[in-house]
Amino acid sequence: MNNFNFYTPTKIVFGKGTVSQAGNLVKQFGGTRVLIHYGGESAIKSGLIDDVKKSLDEAGLFHVELGGVVPNPHLSKVYEGIELAKENGVDFLLPVGGGSVIDSAKAIAYALYEPDEDVWDLYDHTRQSKGSFPLGAIVTIAAAGSEMSDSSVITNEKTGEKRGYNSDICRPKFAIMDPELTLTLPDYQTMSGCVDIMMHTMERYFTGNGNMELTDAIAEGLMKTVMKFAKILHANPTDYEARAEMMWANSLSHNGLTGCGNGGNDFASHRLEHEMGGMFDVTHGAGLAAIWPSWARYVMKNNLHRFVKFAKNVMDVNPMIGADGSELDAPMSDEEIALMGISRVEEFYHSIAMPINMRELGIEPTEEQILEMTDGCVRATGGKVGSAKVLERADMEAIYRMAL
Amino acid sequence: MNNFNFYTPTKIVFGKGTVSQAGNLVKQFGGTRVLIHYGGESAIKSGLIDDVKKSLDEAGLFHVELGGVVPNPHLSKVYEGIELAKENGVDFLLPVGGGSVIDSAKAIAYALYEPDEDVWDLYDHTRQSKGSFPLGAIVTIAAAGSEMSDSSVITNEKTGEKRGYNSDICRPKFAIMDPELTLTLPDYQTMSGCVDIMMHTMERYFTGNGNMELTDAIAEGLMKTVMKFAKILHANPTDYEARAEMMWANSLSHNGLTGCGNGGNDFASHRLEHEMGGMFDVTHGAGLAAIWPSWARYVMKNNLHRFVKFAKNVMDVNPMIGADGSELDAPMSDEEIALMGISRVEEFYHSIAMPINMRELGIEPTEEQILEMTDGCVRATGGKVGSAKVLERADMEAIYRMAL
Repeated sequence: MNNFNFYTPTKIVFGKGTVSQAGNLVKQFGGTRVLIHYGGESAIKSGLIDDVKKSLDEAGLFHVELGGVVPNPHLSKVYEGIELAKENGVDFLLPVGGGSVIDSAKAIAYALYEPDEDVWDLYDHTRQSKGSFPLGAIVTIAAAGSEMSDSSVITNEKTGEKRGYNSDICRPKFAIMDPELTLTLPDYQTMSGCVDIMMHTMERYFTGNGNMELTDAIAEGLMKTVMKFAKILHANPTDYEARAEMMWANSLSHNGLTGCGNGGNDFASHRLEHEMGGMFDVTHGAGLAAIWPSWARYVMKNNLHRFVKFAKNVMDVNPMIGADGSELDAPMSDEEIALMGISRVEEFYHSIAMPINMRELGIEPTEEQILEMTDGCVRATGGKVGSAKVLERADMEAIYRMAL
Repeated sequence: MNNFNFYTPTKIVFGKGTVSQAGNLVKQFGGTRVLIHYGGESAIKSGLIDDVKKSLDEAGLFHVELGGVVPNPHLSKVYEGIELAKENGVDFLLPVGGGSVIDSAKAIAYALYEPDEDVWDLYDHTRQSKGSFPLGAIVTIAAAGSEMSDSSVITNEKTGEKRGYNSDICRPKFAIMDPELTLTLPDYQTMSGCVDIMMHTMERYFTGNGNMELTDAIAEGLMKTVMKFAKILHANPTDYEARAEMMWANSLSHNGLTGCGNGGNDFASHRLEHEMGGMFDVTHGAGLAAIWPSWARYVMKNNLHRFVKFAKNVMDVNPMIGADGSELDAPMSDEEIALMGISRVEEFYHSIAMPINMRELGIEPTEEQILEMTDGCVRATGGKVGSAKVLERADMEAIYRMAL
């Protein structure tokens, strides 16, 4: 087991009717002038933004608003938010949305703290943040876990670069999580979210530097719960209990809990997907589903004991039962067990209408684009990424080709 | 599932050699004049207090110290700490110890924020706290989980009252958790700690108001991990990995994670034990082990589905396998399954040399003392406590008698 830090200061207010607490929570954490940040028109049409404004009004708080954040949120919108916030003396950010909106708000919050710097430097990794304005989040999609995470991912739409910046500085002060806000989400977004949640724990599970059994037990319980309720939501999207399970799993999967003691996460699949997302604007979770099986088969032998544990404890692989369900004469080898675990992840993704390669995702990168994505991944990672296996340039390219 | 709040702002710094970060952490959270608070001489003899002082000196921080905190920490020591802190202009509390020391520091921290009030009022539930001075903890025992919890328990040694006060206000800013500090703990203390850790999750598991499957999965994984490593530590107390698993379980078991969505915890066993602890000064975890089986058998029928789930998922009860290990012709009834789960908890406690009743704990309350403990429990709870079953006066008395 490895030393670790764990820091989740975000106050969670979870359940039905909690949006009305927004104003008091902003006040409690010192906000007086609020930028409400959101995505599409649905947040307005549903009445959610009005509910938020009402709560802020009741708390006597000034507010302005900026919508229009898109999935794979754009740097230009971040710049727009910075200007609007400065003009209005904003001292608190209140994103209302999923990971894209919260990540965009985090970028604005970083920028306001250091108004003379270009915030893209953080995402380009040419400097570190010294601080951030405070933010709270109202979560409307269970996927990215940004409301408790140290992570923010922004796309520079001019260059097609999708880059992440991680720091404890930007962890939100509070998060309001009402599962009812997610009841009307379309199936594709819901299932992409479920994959993202699975993957945030899988990226922490497949590591090469030692693990903690308590962390594994929590991670395994979380992944099994997510798979169970993803299938329930695929059949019945308005199941409140299932929406609630998924929403809480979304936070716990990316707040660090499922990685304690593992000596560093993998996140190679995320980096590979970021290039796909920057180039083709795919839905993040679906993109992860399309890349993971190829990544897994490529790195499996370098981290075999973890893939075996995953297969047995998460995917219920029994070494004495073959793929056709019949009892075997001798137990499967570790490699066979690991491969069956990977196949079962693919079966699970198919069962919720998620892709397992780029063709199923609906993208067909040209030869040139494969090399461009590889170049991008090398630039973004400094040429090395991963823990289960440290990927270099040739590995990245090979995995992209496997995933076609 | 029920609405819930979750708030764990404590920054965890976990692993070997982390005590040297104490000074920087105190500074990071705004401390300048520190009261180091600890228990017995062992913290001095081991060199730990010197290490702490060295780290504070290197960070340029003023410090005074107060040792002598006893298990079931005394109100008189709290008053002593308040005076010392006031005399020296202390603005940050740094307990070095287990739950007793951290709880004592929390009481001092509350008192310093409202210097004109008697802090015992909080524990006597005649007023609410308005704030607290900041504190960080250096943990030396895996048991109470006080370093991340909202809880503090103090004993008024003049009246024999042991009372708790819960508030988010007192959650520590940081906790340094080096499992090496626990390697030399005696077996009885270690195993009492393991019971305390188990019980903090069990108190949240047996509730009558609905549950969340994700929370259950995490709770079940935690309890199974604790039982496994308790047995390992009972055989080999210097196993670092096992000490580390137990230390992290100790925090996660009492920071609220294992109760999310359960609509209110039970904690009746804790209240019953508090009266035993106030009267006989027993080790808290051992006291819990002595009361729980009687509580469980008494309330079981009121919360049968939870006892069945616990038996199957935590204690590995198979409804088709009898107590002697033979296959049954028909599955056991839910009541039989629940009872077998309780028996297996007793077997586990015996396997780590923990008691399952008061006689084994080494106390024999007189008829008068039973009534006195019942009176105390009624006073401390307002006459009603619990969620699996709401206990009233007659129930409390009956459970004490069952547990003799």
